[in-house]
Amino acid sequence: MGKVVYDISMSLDGFVAAANVRPEAGLGDGGERLHEWAFNSDDPRNRQFLEVVGTTGAVIVGRTTYDLSIPYWGADGPTGSARIPTVVVSHSVPGDIPGGSVYIFADSIESAFEKAKQAAGDKDIGVAGANTAQQLITLGFIDEILVHVVPVMFGSGVRFFEQPDGEHVSLETIEVIETKEIIHLRFRVIK
Amino acid sequence: MGKVVYDISMSLDGFVAAANVRPEAGLGDGGERLHEWAFNSDDPRNRQFLEVVGTTGAVIVGRTTYDLSIPYWGADGPTGSARIPTVVVSHSVPGDIPGGSVYIFADSIESAFEKAKQAAGDKDIGVAGANTAQQLITLGFIDEILVHVVPVMFGSGVRFFEQPDGEHVSLETIEVIETKEIIHLRFRVIK
Repeated sequence: MGKVVYDISMSLDGFVAAANVRPEAGLGDGGERLHEWAFNSDDPRNRQFLEVVGTTGAVIVGRTTYDLSIPYWGADGPTGSARIPTVVVSHSVPGDIPGGSVYIFADSIESAFEKAKQAAGDKDIGVAGANTAQQLITLGFIDEILVHVVPVMFGSGVRFFEQPDGEHVSLETIEVIETKEIIHLRFRVIK
Repeated sequence: MGKVVYDISMSLDGFVAAANVRPEAGLGDGGERLHEWAFNSDDPRNRQFLEVVGTTGAVIVGRTTYDLSIPYWGADGPTGSARIPTVVVSHSVPGDIPGGSVYIFADSIESAFEKAKQAAGDKDIGVAGANTAQQLITLGFIDEILVHVVPVMFGSGVRFFEQPDGEHVSLETIEVIETKEIIHLRFRVIK
């Protein structure tokens, strides 16, 4: 297995989606601001972060992310034509999974992690979904956190990390890249 | 008047103090981690951010910050021997203000801002205290936000920016400095 990397765009004040997340607005009201850098920048220092397909062997996503994204992902999953195996953490398996899809369902976070390790082989595992990532961080399963800080403050929404009674998580800064649109921060999780 | 600058140390997940803030632990349980960089680093790229006294003409602080800090600040206020005028936003004036102190009391955020402008002359105004800063940001009174991102995640505590029903605040990145201990991010508030 390679590294387990949580890669997420975040507002400066720590939100990974704006308020009122719903099927028609998966990132909340105005939350698409978080992903603009990925669609609207030709800067190679930004583009490099979008080209992770070659090094990623599996992705773990939460059920909420799956439900919000399936209309866009279809059978191919979050990585499109690369069709990387995508493990969905869910207590139940939906009845309408697209035929020939990349999805693997797991009923616990630990089981999802095991299935992702098998699918990834020597490659990295990606993680999507705030709640799923928080559980993986708490279990010590995340090696790196790659945060794309968007110069905006939301004031409310879905929080990057929320853990009322947990231990603090120490990080080591390993990369900082400033571009016009966004600031990329990469950290190693100190376990 | 110069610029109005909100200068704050923050965990990666958006907290400016850890959980359980109280008089004996003004930054909450383990929250002193946020200020370690200021005390333990000889890096000149860190030191420069501590030497703002020459350019700052007044400081605005909230009453909670005042109450938590007065045992340490005494009559001289947050800038020590520089004795920069410090405007405290408070509905009431405490009975035990130290004699010959730098404190000016104001019963509203608008009044505090006016008093700070008068005191600052041509110099900058600094801001301390999450709640006070949030009100000043919402009113459009803050020109720059200088965030020192500490490589740690708290999961709970006092939030950098919390505003359930407000507009998003757009920023422009103007400076990014990576050091071993901390990442300094300076933004201009787009009004």
